[in-house]
Order: sequence, then C-alpha cells, then structure tokens
Amino acid sequence: MARSWWGWGNVEDAVSGAELESLLSRVRALTSGELTGHEPPDVGSLDLPAPRVSPPEALAALCSADPADRAAHAHGKAFRDVVRNLHGDLRHVPDLVARPRDETDLVDLLDWCTRDGIAVIPYGGGSSVVGGVEPRFEDRPAVTVDLAQLDGVLEVDPVSRAARVQAGVFGPRLEAGLRPHGLTLRHFPQSFEFSTLGGWLATRSGGHYATLYTHIDDMVESMRVVTPAGVAESRRLPGSGAGPAPDRLFLGSEGALGIITEAWMRVQERPRWRARASVRFADYTAAVAATRAVAQSGLHPANCRLLDAAEALINTGVAVEGGVLLLAFESAGHPVQASLDRALELCRDHGGEVREEPAGESTGDTWRSSFLRMPYQRDALARHAVIAETFETACTWDRFAELHAAVTDAARKAVRAVAGDGVVTCRFTHVYPDGPAPYFGVYAPGRWGGMVAQWDEIKAAVSEAIAASGGTITHHHAVGRDHRPWYDRQRPGPFAAALTAAKSALDPSGVLNPGVLIP
Amino acid sequence: MARSWWGWGNVEDAVSGAELESLLSRVRALTSGELTGHEPPDVGSLDLPAPRVSPPEALAALCSADPADRAAHAHGKAFRDVVRNLHGDLRHVPDLVARPRDETDLVDLLDWCTRDGIAVIPYGGGSSVVGGVEPRFEDRPAVTVDLAQLDGVLEVDPVSRAARVQAGVFGPRLEAGLRPHGLTLRHFPQSFEFSTLGGWLATRSGGHYATLYTHIDDMVESMRVVTPAGVAESRRLPGSGAGPAPDRLFLGSEGALGIITEAWMRVQERPRWRARASVRFADYTAAVAATRAVAQSGLHPANCRLLDAAEALINTGVAVEGGVLLLAFESAGHPVQASLDRALELCRDHGGEVREEPAGESTGDTWRSSFLRMPYQRDALARHAVIAETFETACTWDRFAELHAAVTDAARKAVRAVAGDGVVTCRFTHVYPDGPAPYFGVYAPGRWGGMVAQWDEIKAAVSEAIAASGGTITHHHAVGRDHRPWYDRQRPGPFAAALTAAKSALDPSGVLNPGVLIP
Repeated sequence: MARSWWGWGNVEDAVSGAELESLLSRVRALTSGELTGHEPPDVGSLDLPAPRVSPPEALAALCSADPADRAAHAHGKAFRDVVRNLHGDLRHVPDLVARPRDETDLVDLLDWCTRDGIAVIPYGGGSSVVGGVEPRFEDRPAVTVDLAQLDGVLEVDPVSRAARVQAGVFGPRLEAGLRPHGLTLRHFPQSFEFSTLGGWLATRSGGHYATLYTHIDDMVESMRVVTPAGVAESRRLPGSGAGPAPDRLFLGSEGALGIITEAWMRVQERPRWRARASVRFADYTAAVAATRAVAQSGLHPANCRLLDAAEALINTGVAVEGGVLLLAFESAGHPVQASLDRALELCRDHGGEVREEPAGESTGDTWRSSFLRMPYQRDALARHAVIAETFETACTWDRFAELHAAVTDAARKAVRAVAGDGVVTCRFTHVYPDGPAPYFGVYAPGRWGGMVAQWDEIKAAVSEAIAASGGTITHHHAVGRDHRPWYDRQRPGPFAAALTAAKSALDPSGVLNPGVLIP
Repeated sequence: MARSWWGWGNVEDAVSGAELESLLSRVRALTSGELTGHEPPDVGSLDLPAPRVSPPEALAALCSADPADRAAHAHGKAFRDVVRNLHGDLRHVPDLVARPRDETDLVDLLDWCTRDGIAVIPYGGGSSVVGGVEPRFEDRPAVTVDLAQLDGVLEVDPVSRAARVQAGVFGPRLEAGLRPHGLTLRHFPQSFEFSTLGGWLATRSGGHYATLYTHIDDMVESMRVVTPAGVAESRRLPGSGAGPAPDRLFLGSEGALGIITEAWMRVQERPRWRARASVRFADYTAAVAATRAVAQSGLHPANCRLLDAAEALINTGVAVEGGVLLLAFESAGHPVQASLDRALELCRDHGGEVREEPAGESTGDTWRSSFLRMPYQRDALARHAVIAETFETACTWDRFAELHAAVTDAARKAVRAVAGDGVVTCRFTHVYPDGPAPYFGVYAPGRWGGMVAQWDEIKAAVSEAIAASGGTITHHHAVGRDHRPWYDRQRPGPFAAALTAAKSALDPSGVLNPGVLIP
C-alpha cells in the first residue's frame, strides 16, 4: 500500500471503475456539472523552493529534504487542500520533514528550532481539514515534525483498564495493540485509519460513537507533553479536583503549546452485546424531536445519527421525506435490547416508523460502508471538478431549528452564487442531552481552477451563519488556520489573554505551530 | 434559623440531647478520650484588629466591618477551622466583608481592590475545608466578597434542559428554582445546604452520585467570570472542539483567576425509577474487586459506595468483616431493576451477600441520614476534644491496595504518635472505570488546646503517603492553602508556569485570593 501524496489514504484504495461510475451518475442526477476527470500532477514535477535551513549534524539523519516528502506534508486533507494539490499549488511547504525516533530526538529537534527561530509543525497523520499542519507563513522556515515513529502501545493495565500509548500510533495499530487484552479505545473518528492518537488529543477529536464519551478528552487519564519550557507529565488519575485540570490545557492546543508524546488512555472491554434499528420519519421536525428525546433519555446509544432526507438518499439509498435515525446500542457487560426497545418507543411517540434490521444488512451498515469511503469519494469528485466538502458545529436544542434554517439557507445561497446549483445535506454526528452536533455536506459543480475560491466563499458564508446562530465554529474538526476568524470571535477575551500568556510561558520563542489558535 | 459563626450550618441544628449522648457513647467505645465539653467563645468577645481599609463612598453600603461578620468569614469549615474558632484563635480575619448586589457592584469592588492592592477573597458558602477562604497572609489588607446576594435561577431552558443560575445561590434554593420545571441539577455534595454553585464550580465539587457525572465540571454548559482583565463569558454549547476548553481553566481556579458570577448548567429530569440494595462482604479485597466490577460494568449506578468495616459500623450500625457496598440506581426515563440485578450478580460473583431492602429502611437510608449529620457531629466531637476529620484522594485500581495500606498505616502511626489511639475508616465516595476515590475518616482523642497541631501532623503524614502512592492530593476538596505543598509537587512544572502566566494576564495586580494555587 502506498499513501497518496495529494489525497486521502492509500493510492490503491482510490475510487475507480464501477464505484466511480456509480458515484458520478449519482452526482449527475443531483447537479449540472460536466464531470470531466483530471489527473493529479506527478509529485516529481512540482518545483519546490529549496529548503532554507539545514539541520545540525547530529539531527541530519532524522531530517528529510526529499521534495515528495515535503510536498506530502505541506497540506492537510481538507477539500481545499486536495484541490490545491491537484493543481500543483503548493505555496507553502515545510523546509524539512523530521522524524524523531524517540522523545530525546524530539527534545533535540525542539531545542534546535527554538534556538534558530525555526517554526515547528507537529504532524500526526496529517488528516487536518482546517489547515492545522500547513506552514502558512513566510517570515521563517518550518520543520514539520512527523511523529509516526513514536507508535508503540507501551503498557496495558488490565486492572484499571488503561493503556500507555505513544502519540504517533495510528488508529488500527493502536487497536491491534489492545485487542490481545480484549480491550479497545473505542474511538473511531472518520479519519481512524490515517490519523494518530496524538493528533486526536491535540485537536479534541470526536469518535464514531454518538453519546456519552464523544470527544477523546474524556478518555485521557494522563498525558506527557514536550514543550520548549520542559516536559509536562500529569499523574495517572481516574478523577481529580486539584486545581484546573492540567490535561485540559493541552487537549485542543493543536501543537501551539507543546508536542504530545504519549498518554495513558482509558480503554474498555470489547462490546459483546449489540442491538440496532433504523427509524424513518415523514417530518424532519418530528425526527429532531425524537432524536432529542433519545439523547435526553439517559440510555446512551452508541449510534444516534439522524440523517436528513438528502443525506439518507445519497449515503444509504433510502428515500424518505423527514429523514432516518440510525440507532445502535452496544455493551461488553449486559444485553442492550431493552435499551433499544425503550429508545424505539420514544421514536414511535414522535411518529417514527421503526425498522429492526438484521446485522450486516441494516441501513446503519450501508451508511457505515459509505462513511468509510466518503473521503475517497470526495477526492474522486474533486478530480471531476465537483465541490464536495463538509463542515460541522454544535448548538443547544433550543437553537437548533433556527441554526439549521440559517445555515442551510446561507449554504444554498452561497452555492447558488458560486456554482449555480448544488445540494446541502445535514446529519447529526453526536447528540448530547443539551444539544446536537449537526454536520453539513455540500455538493456542487465546481469550476476547474476556481474551486478553492468557490469553496472559501461558501465556507465563509456558513461560518458567519453558524456564529450568528450561536453554534461553535467547530465541534470536532479543530480550529487550525481556517477557522481562526470565527474562533477568535467565539473565544472569551480574557481566556484568549490567558492562553496567549500560557503560550509565552511554554514557548517563549513562539516556534510551535505559528498562526494556530494564537496570533 | 441562625448560621453558626464558628461551626457547621445552623445553630439550631447542632448536635445535642440524646443524639449527643449516643454519639459520645459510641466514641467512648472506640477511643480513650475524656470527652469533656467546651463552649464556643462568644463572637462579641473576640478582640479583632481594626480594619486596615475603608471602602470608597460609593461602595460603603456594600461593605461590612462588623466584627461578627468578619469573624464568621475568617475561616472555612475544616476541623482545624472549627477548632481554631472554638479557641477564639482568629489570627487572620478579612478587613471587610463586601456583599455585591449584582455584577456591576462586583466589578466596582474588584476595580477598587485592584487599584489599592487589596486582596479579594471570593466567598460562596464558606464551606472550604482546605483554607480556601482564609486571608492567611500579612502583607496586605483583605476584602472577602460574599456572593450570597447573587442567588437567582435566572432562566430555565426546558428544551435543552439547561438553566442559567447565579453563582451565589445555595443548593436548596437552586433545586427549588428547578423543581417547578420537573428538573434538577442532581448535584448534592455533603455541603449542599451551605455551599453555592459558584463555590462548587471554583473548587470542582464532587456530588453525591458515585459514577458518570461526579464532578460539577461535566454539568457546565457555559460560564461567566469577572476578572480584573474583563468579563469572560463562554458560548452555550453542548460540546465543542474549538481550542482548549475555556471553562476548564476557570473550573478549579479557586478564586485565583476570576470570580464566577453565573453559569448555564445542564439539568435533568427528576428521577422516577429507583432500585437499591446493600451487599455485605466477608473480605475487603473481594469487596473492592466487586466494586471495581460494578464500576467497569457500564451500568452507571447512582450510588456505589463501599464502606469498610469501621465506616459501616460507625455510620450504619452494620457489623461485617469486609465492608458493605451500598448500591442504588435511578432514572427519570426507564425502570432500573435490571441494572441493579446485573450489578448484584457481579457482587455475588465476588462473594457478596445481597440484601434487597425496602425503601426508607435500607442500609443506604441509614447511611444517608448519618451523612447529612456528619459535619454537625464533627463539631460536637471537636467541642469534646475529639479529633474528627476526613481526607480524600483518588487513584487507579492497580494502585489502590498499596495506597490503601500505605495511607491507613501512615494515618494509624500518626494517630498513635499524636493521640495514643484512634480509628481510621475508609469509604469510596466515587468510583470510575479506572479507579476509586477513597475517602478516609480519622477519629482520635485530642488534647484541648493542641488539636490543630495534632491534626496537622496527621494530615502531613497521610498527604505524604498519598503522594508517594500516586494518588491525587484532592479528588473533590480542592487545594486551597492547606494542600499547596503536595499540589505543587503533583502539578506538572510547565503547567504551573502556564497557570502562573495566565494569572498574571488576568489578575496583573495579584489581588485575587493570594496564596491559592499560585505562589
């Protein structure tokens, strides 16, 4: 398997053949684009600027100046990243890619960069969709620090159900390290195969499960973070009330305060009992009310994903006016059918039509297969000049109807303005007792050569609508460089001052991921 | 009802008559103390130093220089506070007690104190057991800011199940404001009647419920905090991944970073289904294993409190070698008997003898009645020269046996050294999948006039043992001034630097609760 330098995942897994034909025919039915295919440029043909720095002798073996390596680390994996790659538009590339073998290497790299005023971009799987790993600045050289060699599951404590894991481990390897113990982290973001524990922690990743433990934050027992001011290691504790929680400062710090090297993570027994169903609704308002009832029931479903009509049609093939709610329960310890039954009762109370479906053939299964292919399909669409991107937020239930209307309206207007026509979809990725996390998709015919500008215009419009409706600029995609204007308005002023001061204390030379979170 | 100036709660509720006789006879059976009663000094007889500051004209109406008022605000409600009060030993008293009527008053008070270099001690219910509200410094005058007038439940959002509540509201008034809506915060720390929402937030309070949502932290939707650098207000969100969580910096900040004025809190429907039982064990190790199995079961009991033999005997009257596990389940939405049955099955697997007990007559009920009387009884014992105090921690399951042995041993040795004999008890207040929060009690005959030094010696010994065993210096009692030496060692160095920098940004004059958390 070879990783794609320009797009998602493995080259061999790209959408092609019948899958591509089927995808394009579905898109043709929805929009008026021409759907001409374009080939990605050969990575060797990119004329990258020469590195502006060279590493000291002792670190030379860790550092790569290979153009393909630098190109592959220049962007994250947002639609606008993929499109820029497809156009060979790599304005900012790291001068070097460094691969520390251990924490000592990392400390040495950080010392060198701090001394020489070189920006350091911590890099896990590089799956950022918010410009989090892009050296989008011109005032100094940049070294991308790829942590992929720190990839061990170092210790498993089966008594406390916790594991000490290095930050550079990718999802599948992490789970493989836990499986022999009958344990799982049970954190499956869509990027799971191509993102790392350290990346999840630094960006407050959201997993696949819809309720209870959604963000990675709650699964952290302790963390170890290398900063220019020293190594911060918190004590392994199941809970504490000793001052503000130290780990919470580093969770979501996006590489701007330090580089996470390892963490003790809370793990779980692997689920043995499962029950699932889908519920169809004739009316979206009723579907939302049913979803809210389940979210507030205290039943804690593993899946509670409301797909609106367009999302249901595109990704599960189900045609239904008001949407489909995918429900699933899982447990390692006890049967869950009673919980599903109670949740379905709540759905019926709101007019839902329940389908209990056999494992392997359910609407949820169909949806999950789509889910894992989505980033690959997005790339195929980008190559055919189709704008295909998502954005997400969270808000309280009382504001949802208004937010949904305002955001959908803003998205449709912007799509019309930049692309003529298109489709806007919505699903809930996570639901809380006090509100949902709506996740929107946009599909529209793009103009080859103009798609970044087209998307940026749509993104600005929806971000304004989200902010005006009281949503967060990101529930689980992080802030990076793309969300900064809205993040800066969302964040309380005194907190920004505190965070800036904390950054100055930890990173006095300001080398860590400049432009992320803090000016 | 009149609040006691020197001890817990209401004067009228003090332990007396038959309750006092029964308490003293139980203590006589356990220790060799003389149990001579002592009267608290008359508050009017205390010869307090004159206030060193007087408020500006515009704030004069908010400020009290009344000696009784100042004396009542000088200490928290730890054993060592009560004992010092009983001896009239008020070395540090606030110069003034200020009572802002609203946030404008608070901002004005903070402006004045910042300008004149006067320390500001935020004060909720004053139930700190760690020296959190005591002006334990001599280099500047102090104004205690009592928030009791900010006591409104301002808004209830029944759709999102959230309520906007002022920081100065006491537990019962908060619940009274939610009850007409069928809602509850369901956060019942032992101090519930005499502590405030703002105090809970500032100290990361732990509630009565044993699993899932234990600390107040997880119930916060957004917060409003007045700092010398401006007002920080976070957006109401059910979840977010936009940078490090702003509220988490202020949760546990103990008045050192700002003064919390209000919060949107996540509330719940009032429980309707309940099931409970107690389980007796012949062996403590088996009891701990059973408790761990329940904590890791995903069943989320409302109560899961393991009392060791001494704790069970003293507070429930049950004599059993290995301890009693109190189990209870509650739900607003669905029956919970199946969950209890599964938990009891786990307990039987570990040799537990199950007692399903009728509501109102259960071991849990007996224990709960004791629970609410404990602080009053502690005061009665203090007046009879009995050392009676608690301390608590949390650790991972793999370390518990060692921590329990080391801490118990340290406590017993210290008790023997300072008091000759005594009793050390242990219960779990909260349990997590990765570890318990053990809570220890110490009862020993004291020496009238020497009990503070006696307790401080015991406390230092057990704190060292906790630190050496990898526990936290506090799971839910906060840091205050008493836990500083161990907190400073527990906190990662770079986090301390970041927190100190954050404090300098928010409170450049360093007036906010000096000595708490930060040097």
